[in-house]
Amino acid sequence: MSRQLRVSAVSLPVEIGDVAANLAAVEHALRQRQPGPLLIVLPELATSGYVFADAAEARALAMRADDPRLVSLAGLLSPDTVAVVGFCEIDDGRLFNSALVLGSAGVLGCYRKAHLWGTERGVFVPGDEAGAVLDTPVGRIGVAICYDGEFPELTRRLALAGAEVLALPVNWPMVARPLGEHPPETIQLMAAARTSRLATVIADRHGVERGVEWTGGTAVISADGWIQATPAGGVATAVLDLSDDKSLGAHNDLFADRRPELYGGIHV
Amino acid sequence: MSRQLRVSAVSLPVEIGDVAANLAAVEHALRQRQPGPLLIVLPELATSGYVFADAAEARALAMRADDPRLVSLAGLLSPDTVAVVGFCEIDDGRLFNSALVLGSAGVLGCYRKAHLWGTERGVFVPGDEAGAVLDTPVGRIGVAICYDGEFPELTRRLALAGAEVLALPVNWPMVARPLGEHPPETIQLMAAARTSRLATVIADRHGVERGVEWTGGTAVISADGWIQATPAGGVATAVLDLSDDKSLGAHNDLFADRRPELYGGIHV
Repeated sequence: MSRQLRVSAVSLPVEIGDVAANLAAVEHALRQRQPGPLLIVLPELATSGYVFADAAEARALAMRADDPRLVSLAGLLSPDTVAVVGFCEIDDGRLFNSALVLGSAGVLGCYRKAHLWGTERGVFVPGDEAGAVLDTPVGRIGVAICYDGEFPELTRRLALAGAEVLALPVNWPMVARPLGEHPPETIQLMAAARTSRLATVIADRHGVERGVEWTGGTAVISADGWIQATPAGGVATAVLDLSDDKSLGAHNDLFADRRPELYGGIHV
Repeated sequence: MSRQLRVSAVSLPVEIGDVAANLAAVEHALRQRQPGPLLIVLPELATSGYVFADAAEARALAMRADDPRLVSLAGLLSPDTVAVVGFCEIDDGRLFNSALVLGSAGVLGCYRKAHLWGTERGVFVPGDEAGAVLDTPVGRIGVAICYDGEFPELTRRLALAGAEVLALPVNWPMVARPLGEHPPETIQLMAAARTSRLATVIADRHGVERGVEWTGGTAVISADGWIQATPAGGVATAVLDLSDDKSLGAHNDLFADRRPELYGGIHV
């Protein structure tokens, strides 16, 4: 069984500290209309920006997952559209680097980043699940955030749990790479996609924020691990062929070929 | 603590079915002399060739791991050299797709491929460990064979077990890829390297065997996931900086950042 899903990864223009302007940009992105089922993915911390001066600034920009400003975004979506929006979450005084999953009926889920990057530990509490899988009106969607995607344990886990596509909000700071190479994070997600035939939708930032240059890695990666779309006008759009077929060539199956009974200890 | 190790990945000329000629080519490769500690990696099934007409042909080309023709290869090595040689192994009537690890003192280990590709199941029995780690005169070496390397569970496992470098004999059949992209298997191993800071030495075939075109993916991949060397005259040589430092940037550690307690079940 195979079916098609249109996906839209938006390299949102984000202004650090200006929640109202960022929410307006989010709203603009969610108002897009495309034929057929649609998955929209926006960057990590899209409502706040990323390069906080300190934890107090992040706290001032944080919202609860049931904040009316977020919940009302659902009203912008058509019934066959799902959106994944990175935001700075506060809950019971604790901050999380989270992604809200929205359908036209309301909030479908909220995932909290489990692998914190850089100085994030000074701001956020890590989440207590390694990626999430949600059944939504557009399919079974895996969600992870930025550095999460560099742990193959997580991407494999979501694929084995039946995720048809991985939605990955990120803020990738630019790192050096050899001429002609993709960003290293892109390579890791191309590999993860091919390893499990897990199509992946990456929404990154672009430009510079408080001295941090972003990688501009927004892309759609197909289940066979190739870059299917990069941004035009800030948006990467593609139609993915979704399938639970994990075969590779005529004789192999990427899931059935695993030998989990051997992956525990090490014989030296 | 960091130290240097010279590595040499040889895209050996192999003649399907001609064990004597292939052993001569292996001997030539093992006679190379380089300054300092040296790890030599030869392709998968280097003594036999890969594209067997049937299981009977493979059986006729197979050798025991203690075959004098193999054991005597150790005599060609200098004391600070270790070699990993793919061969077609027979043991108690069963065939394995194996890699012999040799030092000047003799056979150090024999690893049997655990993840069988294509029609290999009609010929070989899969091994019962997912990659191996051996302490050798040139360091703690991880060994896996071809399709094994496409399972991140295996590469991560070897890295966590302290492998300083991964020796990977392969026979990669050419597959289509977009213009300008690396072979998909290369991308998976670049990702695996960066994921665990595990330098990787890939010895592939080149040319065509019985209609199968090889990828020519022989390469040395550095611990940060970039291609450090490709073949010149059939041999890719590089000096690797080996280290047990798994840090990524100023605030992260690729091993300490793992959250294995979350990688089990899936919350949906």
